[in-house]
Amino acid sequence: MTTTANGRRKPPTIHDVAREAGVSRGTVSRFLNGGHYVSPAARRAVEAAIRKTGYVVNRHARSLSTGRSDSVAFLLTEPQEKFFEDPNFNVLLRGCTERLAQHDIPLLLMLAESDDDRRRLTRYITSGHVDGVLLLSNHSGDPVAAELHDAGIPLVVCGKPIGRGTKVSYVAAADREGAQDMVRHLLAGGRRRVGMVTGPLDMPGGPDRLAGYRDMLAEAGLPYDPSLVVEGDFRRSGGERAARRLLAQAPDMDAVFVASDLMALGVVGVLQQAGRSVPDDIAVGGFDDSPAATAIAPALTTMRQPFDRISAEMVRMLLAQIAGEDTAGVILPTELVVRDSA
Amino acid sequence: MTTTANGRRKPPTIHDVAREAGVSRGTVSRFLNGGHYVSPAARRAVEAAIRKTGYVVNRHARSLSTGRSDSVAFLLTEPQEKFFEDPNFNVLLRGCTERLAQHDIPLLLMLAESDDDRRRLTRYITSGHVDGVLLLSNHSGDPVAAELHDAGIPLVVCGKPIGRGTKVSYVAAADREGAQDMVRHLLAGGRRRVGMVTGPLDMPGGPDRLAGYRDMLAEAGLPYDPSLVVEGDFRRSGGERAARRLLAQAPDMDAVFVASDLMALGVVGVLQQAGRSVPDDIAVGGFDDSPAATAIAPALTTMRQPFDRISAEMVRMLLAQIAGEDTAGVILPTELVVRDSA
Repeated sequence: MTTTANGRRKPPTIHDVAREAGVSRGTVSRFLNGGHYVSPAARRAVEAAIRKTGYVVNRHARSLSTGRSDSVAFLLTEPQEKFFEDPNFNVLLRGCTERLAQHDIPLLLMLAESDDDRRRLTRYITSGHVDGVLLLSNHSGDPVAAELHDAGIPLVVCGKPIGRGTKVSYVAAADREGAQDMVRHLLAGGRRRVGMVTGPLDMPGGPDRLAGYRDMLAEAGLPYDPSLVVEGDFRRSGGERAARRLLAQAPDMDAVFVASDLMALGVVGVLQQAGRSVPDDIAVGGFDDSPAATAIAPALTTMRQPFDRISAEMVRMLLAQIAGEDTAGVILPTELVVRDSA
Repeated sequence: MTTTANGRRKPPTIHDVAREAGVSRGTVSRFLNGGHYVSPAARRAVEAAIRKTGYVVNRHARSLSTGRSDSVAFLLTEPQEKFFEDPNFNVLLRGCTERLAQHDIPLLLMLAESDDDRRRLTRYITSGHVDGVLLLSNHSGDPVAAELHDAGIPLVVCGKPIGRGTKVSYVAAADREGAQDMVRHLLAGGRRRVGMVTGPLDMPGGPDRLAGYRDMLAEAGLPYDPSLVVEGDFRRSGGERAARRLLAQAPDMDAVFVASDLMALGVVGVLQQAGRSVPDDIAVGGFDDSPAATAIAPALTTMRQPFDRISAEMVRMLLAQIAGEDTAGVILPTELVVRDSA
């Protein structure tokens, strides 16, 4: 312990140890981290200084006894811009952080934009620095889920992994049923030329929402018209491009189901610039009920994803896996939220 | 990439980087180990050669021999919403990620919103899972810099730490001089009632930009009028609130210097809603030259922060500390960018 000018004692620091031992701070640090490149004489001096100063290594007792890192990664394999742009990530990140906080576990956010980023982060994760991974935005061609799964890392994926659903645990919204509910709502409003902007068809939420759209057209006895369907990218700019294509391909479109609220922002903007009134000329239905849904006029009619339950289930399942239990897939229902756009 | 005799391409080596850069292999090695004794010119040449050759360090072999985690944290002690809203963080995060990638070191993003978050993340960092910390948004009352410094964790702060500048290494823009340049520009345009929206006065960029504003008023022989100055929070909504107060307190204001581009977006919006033309009625000068500056009409006249150099210096200094070197404070110049708002 050292005593400050005003007489208060404060815990000794690594600097006090270094001063007492007559070595550099770096030497003390290397000693504390395993003793590499520390001479026997320096090691003895540091050990004596630690005893004399009463320095205590700040290490969590639980981690020492279990060998765990007591941390969880929130890994996003998407371009960094998308992470900042899409409010869904913000909502899921907050939900997961709060649920983990209840277990006093910190969340490490990892953005893997390139193959090299992914390789570096996978190496870090599989070196024992992280107990498990919450994985977001898993493209079907992305090897990261398989790599982590094969390395035995506890793993929960957000969204139903395409082609790997039986092996990897996941939490997803009921995408197909949600899309059915939205298209049913559009048809119930008397619309007959219903277009769709899908998500990327190699990503969770892509094919299933398209399937739900086709289900409802079939149920209503309407033909499936490919000129009414454009693939988007879950980004606002992708929604804008898709809306321009739909206006050109299907100018008589009277409604459009957009597979994410962020894309729907772009769609509504382009429709309005083209002089189409929403919802009078063209009804627009979104998906997510993210903060984007109420960021425009008219406010979006959308399918609410239960983000809070998704976060809670992801964390629950990951902690169960870390504790040695098996988990599987969980599908949570969505809910129609009727506002002004449809 | 080089091509072997049998036509297969093999990964570039340190020798390829040295040849490309026109330096010795030892210089490249010193660069990769933290940049000691490497001249600025050689550093730039090596960085360019690494980009051109695509050289990747075999970091894994090294961590086995050093006992390091070979990872670096990018720690932000701000509300999560601010991280998503302020484009400066996106730019700095990308810059630091790319510079660390040249050394094959992954970046872990950590958001400490609450005291509990901070405690959990500090525990993780000081348990040896991270070699060093790049710290953003250091409020003067925030103990995290002191905690990490006292624990002997290599640490570089973005922005000049208030009250701790002599102990903790930092990289900052020349805030006071930059503010002087902007206010000089506003006065040179004939403005005489120049207001200011400051940053939080307990944060880097707060007091120094205000001091630069006062310097220029004094130099021009103009009085300091407290009704022309409002403290903001570096957020868009804070800029909006500040602009409303300024319009009420100083309706004859003919220019305003806003200490961040994001706040300036809010200021311009409120001025335009109030029927004031920018820049005809009121000139607006920002600070940052972030993506926010060109997101509005009129495009912002602003002070460019050298974000790429800030990221590069932060990473260089952190790697130097990890290698056992001492580093200090670095101040980088800003540059006036004249667009349409002033």
